[in-house]
Amino acid sequence: MSSTWGNKIRISVFGQSHAEAIGVCIDGLPAGERVDREELGRFMQRRAPGRSKVSTPRREADEVKILCGLVEDVTCGAPLAAIIENTNTRSRDYEFLKETPRPAHADYPAQVKYGGFQDVRGGGHFSGRLTAPLCIAGGICLQILARRGIEIAAHISSVGDVQDEGFDPMGLSRESLERLRAADFPTLSAEKGEEMSALILAASAEGDSVGGTVECIVTGLPVGIGGPLFGGLDGKIASAIFGIPAVKGVEFGAGFGAAGMKGSENNDPYTVKNGKIQTLSNNAGGILGGISTGMPVLFKTAFKPTPSITKPQQSVRLSTLEETELRVVGRHDPCIVPRAVPVVEAVTAIALLDALLEN
Amino acid sequence: MSSTWGNKIRISVFGQSHAEAIGVCIDGLPAGERVDREELGRFMQRRAPGRSKVSTPRREADEVKILCGLVEDVTCGAPLAAIIENTNTRSRDYEFLKETPRPAHADYPAQVKYGGFQDVRGGGHFSGRLTAPLCIAGGICLQILARRGIEIAAHISSVGDVQDEGFDPMGLSRESLERLRAADFPTLSAEKGEEMSALILAASAEGDSVGGTVECIVTGLPVGIGGPLFGGLDGKIASAIFGIPAVKGVEFGAGFGAAGMKGSENNDPYTVKNGKIQTLSNNAGGILGGISTGMPVLFKTAFKPTPSITKPQQSVRLSTLEETELRVVGRHDPCIVPRAVPVVEAVTAIALLDALLEN
Amino acid sequence: MSSTWGNKIRISVFGQSHAEAIGVCIDGLPAGERVDREELGRFMQRRAPGRSKVSTPRREADEVKILCGLVEDVTCGAPLAAIIENTNTRSRDYEFLKETPRPAHADYPAQVKYGGFQDVRGGGHFSGRLTAPLCIAGGICLQILARRGIEIAAHISSVGDVQDEGFDPMGLSRESLERLRAADFPTLSAEKGEEMSALILAASAEGDSVGGTVECIVTGLPVGIGGPLFGGLDGKIASAIFGIPAVKGVEFGAGFGAAGMKGSENNDPYTVKNGKIQTLSNNAGGILGGISTGMPVLFKTAFKPTPSITKPQQSVRLSTLEETELRVVGRHDPCIVPRAVPVVEAVTAIALLDALLEN
Amino acid sequence: MSSTWGNKIRISVFGQSHAEAIGVCIDGLPAGERVDREELGRFMQRRAPGRSKVSTPRREADEVKILCGLVEDVTCGAPLAAIIENTNTRSRDYEFLKETPRPAHADYPAQVKYGGFQDVRGGGHFSGRLTAPLCIAGGICLQILARRGIEIAAHISSVGDVQDEGFDPMGLSRESLERLRAADFPTLSAEKGEEMSALILAASAEGDSVGGTVECIVTGLPVGIGGPLFGGLDGKIASAIFGIPAVKGVEFGAGFGAAGMKGSENNDPYTVKNGKIQTLSNNAGGILGGISTGMPVLFKTAFKPTPSITKPQQSVRLSTLEETELRVVGRHDPCIVPRAVPVVEAVTAIALLDALLEN
Repeated sequence: MSSTWGNKIRISVFGQSHAEAIGVCIDGLPAGERVDREELGRFMQRRAPGRSKVSTPRREADEVKILCGLVEDVTCGAPLAAIIENTNTRSRDYEFLKETPRPAHADYPAQVKYGGFQDVRGGGHFSGRLTAPLCIAGGICLQILARRGIEIAAHISSVGDVQDEGFDPMGLSRESLERLRAADFPTLSAEKGEEMSALILAASAEGDSVGGTVECIVTGLPVGIGGPLFGGLDGKIASAIFGIPAVKGVEFGAGFGAAGMKGSENNDPYTVKNGKIQTLSNNAGGILGGISTGMPVLFKTAFKPTPSITKPQQSVRLSTLEETELRVVGRHDPCIVPRAVPVVEAVTAIALLDALLEN
Repeated sequence: MSSTWGNKIRISVFGQSHAEAIGVCIDGLPAGERVDREELGRFMQRRAPGRSKVSTPRREADEVKILCGLVEDVTCGAPLAAIIENTNTRSRDYEFLKETPRPAHADYPAQVKYGGFQDVRGGGHFSGRLTAPLCIAGGICLQILARRGIEIAAHISSVGDVQDEGFDPMGLSRESLERLRAADFPTLSAEKGEEMSALILAASAEGDSVGGTVECIVTGLPVGIGGPLFGGLDGKIASAIFGIPAVKGVEFGAGFGAAGMKGSENNDPYTVKNGKIQTLSNNAGGILGGISTGMPVLFKTAFKPTPSITKPQQSVRLSTLEETELRVVGRHDPCIVPRAVPVVEAVTAIALLDALLEN
Repeated sequence: MSSTWGNKIRISVFGQSHAEAIGVCIDGLPAGERVDREELGRFMQRRAPGRSKVSTPRREADEVKILCGLVEDVTCGAPLAAIIENTNTRSRDYEFLKETPRPAHADYPAQVKYGGFQDVRGGGHFSGRLTAPLCIAGGICLQILARRGIEIAAHISSVGDVQDEGFDPMGLSRESLERLRAADFPTLSAEKGEEMSALILAASAEGDSVGGTVECIVTGLPVGIGGPLFGGLDGKIASAIFGIPAVKGVEFGAGFGAAGMKGSENNDPYTVKNGKIQTLSNNAGGILGGISTGMPVLFKTAFKPTPSITKPQQSVRLSTLEETELRVVGRHDPCIVPRAVPVVEAVTAIALLDALLEN
Repeated sequence: MSSTWGNKIRISVFGQSHAEAIGVCIDGLPAGERVDREELGRFMQRRAPGRSKVSTPRREADEVKILCGLVEDVTCGAPLAAIIENTNTRSRDYEFLKETPRPAHADYPAQVKYGGFQDVRGGGHFSGRLTAPLCIAGGICLQILARRGIEIAAHISSVGDVQDEGFDPMGLSRESLERLRAADFPTLSAEKGEEMSALILAASAEGDSVGGTVECIVTGLPVGIGGPLFGGLDGKIASAIFGIPAVKGVEFGAGFGAAGMKGSENNDPYTVKNGKIQTLSNNAGGILGGISTGMPVLFKTAFKPTPSITKPQQSVRLSTLEETELRVVGRHDPCIVPRAVPVVEAVTAIALLDALLEN
């Protein structure tokens, strides 16, 4: 099923870029949870375009309209549905995409899959715009998790070949958390952030784009969430994260780096700190045998460069099978990673609340 | 749910390392498919221990007993269940693991999750031995896929810091496929294979272990399998692959490398070859917008080093919260990657048959 | 999960009686299917209140607003979401229901389950009003099924002790189908319909209500849909039908009557008619071993009397545990069965399209 | 999916009548629950054939072999799998069933669905023998529920036109519960039981069979289990019960009788008894708005007559489309209802434990 996810929390995402609205239905939220609309609005703002100099100038009001699921802003046990009406949709001809697919976009496989009936306007259901409803759902889950002492934060860990510092795998201070949430361009090192911005602007100036990675940390998760084999917390998070467009990889803890290690390097020794069992290192990324260890959950997500670039590219006319040159025009982020940061947090929040309630 | 996976093909894996049996129930196999038991046996042999000099000397008969689902070796539409009886289970005391958890094992989080009722004998339900039933299910799916022109192959792409060559992302010859399947230590470069073996033996000699990666290729998959958002073929494969114990990361196509690229480098241009639409490169790993493009599907999986090492490690007594030193004894592979190769193929086959039937 | 249903077609119903809107998200609709909005509107009208003399005088505009999922009224493969904005919601105090639960309503168990956070205004998420989104989803499925030669019809088969004639279990003429769909009070016997109306009005005059049954027939379904055990077509239909509020029973074919028969009476002999295999009778209701036989699918659904009656009833104050007398005021149908007829058709259509696509 | 059921408890039933074994895998059982094998054996005996004079003389050892999921008879959190090896399988030719389908059996629709590959030996996966693994799973769930104060009992409420007394909808004494469980032919009225037995023997003597109903009661279930719409406890139970072969209808509380009532008759008034909220009657069958009320859950299931009768029946040769006469030989129960009683209890236990853990 394309657009639903979850067992105890089930989200159904709907909408196309140029449809009347996009939105989400969230079933399974516990009753009695207050939804702070202002906080949700601030969270949505972090994903909104036009926020920093490296983002598309396209403005979206992105006003969240909660249709149901609340009584005086408190969850009532019924599904919560919310929509964002699409307003700023430039009408122009997208039909040519059915004939000349853009490289690295879903155009060609979608044309085959849907027999030409797919909505090609603005990317349709494949548009990055669909991450807005994910943020609505995730923003609400974040509030519910925070009330249970579970916090989620993410930062841009790389853009192109520029690497940010990494999270301290042993924890995250409240101050760092708040600083990241308030930042326009959330990195741990301000200097590296400047370098990344410069790289993005340079790519943009060339009509090009650039990829990057997002690192995410979860603190406060109790020991014992998840399960072996297909019940793993890592598998659950990964399956949700791959639902975000443009994701090409996910790794937990030391991740691909662990593949280069010896056991004696990778194994996290146990210790006792403040009367609690902890590990001295956290290569496991907080998950062993699919189950949370009580240490912070850490994972990194790889995002490919924005496929829409104005540089000329080679494509093919589907009707005649002739090769042709294509130039993609329009307003696109030269790097989606900055706006992907809250999306990763949102999707992680959905996955964790699901895991928590499933336990 | 810990041990079930799939929508159209649903597998339920069961068993603990020292239970009477381990096994799998597979529901949803199409009727009328012949199961070649000899071929399945050869496939199971690829995962069996004691096969190469780098593997544990422990021998398992691993005789597959198919209980139902077939009539004269042809699927009949009813679920297929198969078991492997556990015979070579050394009885010794494992109870100490409830008191002194091994680093990088599931011991501690499992103790918390199951309140001490988990089966600790030989790793219980967390044991790598549970990958044998995955291979039964996947081995059968591989046969069904092959009949539809879909082939899956994998190789050891790295051990520690030794890298094998990569698959040609444009395809795999029948000859290479067969050579990999017949190899005791499946690498593309024989020389690199020797280096890896040496590295594993050296680690083993030190009472240590080493991690590695497996690269997998799928050829012959038609265009149009999968879907956007949570219906993505990549997400489906990843969610299944994370079901394999010791997996720490999954990346598709250029993967984390794509995060370092520009759009003009990463985007795969379209071309026409033999009257068919193809791409000139395959950084996408055969998947765009969650949907197969018709190019080979390519992905890499990171495995952590075997957690069981004989070197002394620091742990904690759970009852007294005192730190203690632990030595893990027993017969363990110093590197699980060689035996993980067919497991990755098996799990990929299950995921692909599920995706194919779901379409 | 309270409000989602289905495997290949997944509907998520949302809304409360007095929320901003009620609606539905439908994932999995095949691409390329035209949605006839007028036909959908006519179908919705059959469920609308205030349509006949026996229904509540409350008028609802019930204007369906399709938010997404279509391109020029043709399904595009993305989820279809549609809402009905709530307009005619009399504001009055419902809080007393948390203190004094109405007999035969969900008030008391919901109060316990949701800890008092449930939406009690107009029945909240338990309101019969939630059958409107079911009709949107089902109305669309009906159009898709009709294009595949599958038709669904239902009639009021009883109200109180007045029984309508039964469907001919061997089939339904196009004429009867259309007559039922056009009728304000859909019965096969006009005379029995008059008797039922009279019974409803008499109950209403006494401040009472009355129950009844709906019989449903499905024609044109191919042989071979469904499966044994939990994959049964009957189980699938039943699980969906029990999602309709006030349903107390479902029976297929001869149903509870079959329990009183001998095998020689109940077994439907096979015959050949027009070169096709059929049965001479249809006590099976078109389903054997969970699989469709090619004969019409027939089933009956029991609806309890409307719980809201103006006659005084005994209840209890939850805070003091004192018994008290309750009078339910408001605008309620004295019999929900007439308006339930299209709802049964809608839910059956959803279940059948799911079964068809799953096959 | 044909043979899996459940959300928190997921059972996968496998096997064919003449396969090497039949069995079940149960995932999601809470850890730390003792399985009393003797009690389970006694429960299995209640379903075993050859137990009373009205049952088939065929004996099945039906020895349950638990393969995994336990450590010293206590659940360990891993899936529990159990099998029954098939021993007493008379080998004879069943192939003719692919050519000449038996009326009221799944032969014909299965032949179309599975293209002739289905297992026809002894009914294959459609055999009533598959209810034995349901009883293993349900028998274990019954033990777990009993530890939580929840008891399930059922009796033969009718055979043909002979009706047993009904359960007292307000509760069941421990004495009645135990008497029913110990009875060879479980009815409330011994006299009615004798009449039913006579009816079954008379049908058998004529080469015929007879149907009947089973009434089931659940006591001790807390208030608040279930949910509105598709989350209803009634829908969950019904979807599981329709997984039992030969079921043609399910009704809760007053059921189809409620359809003939007025609201003032059907609505159960609230009262206070021993400081607890109860209802004065229990027409609701313990469920309102899909949620348990704390009163006993009551429902009735209709079973059709055994389709296998020795009387000659009309069928059709599928290859030539000629009508033909068929005589079904073999050892069949002339009425499956007595042996269905524990099966209804078992399936109800699975459904309730799933609902309880889901809450």
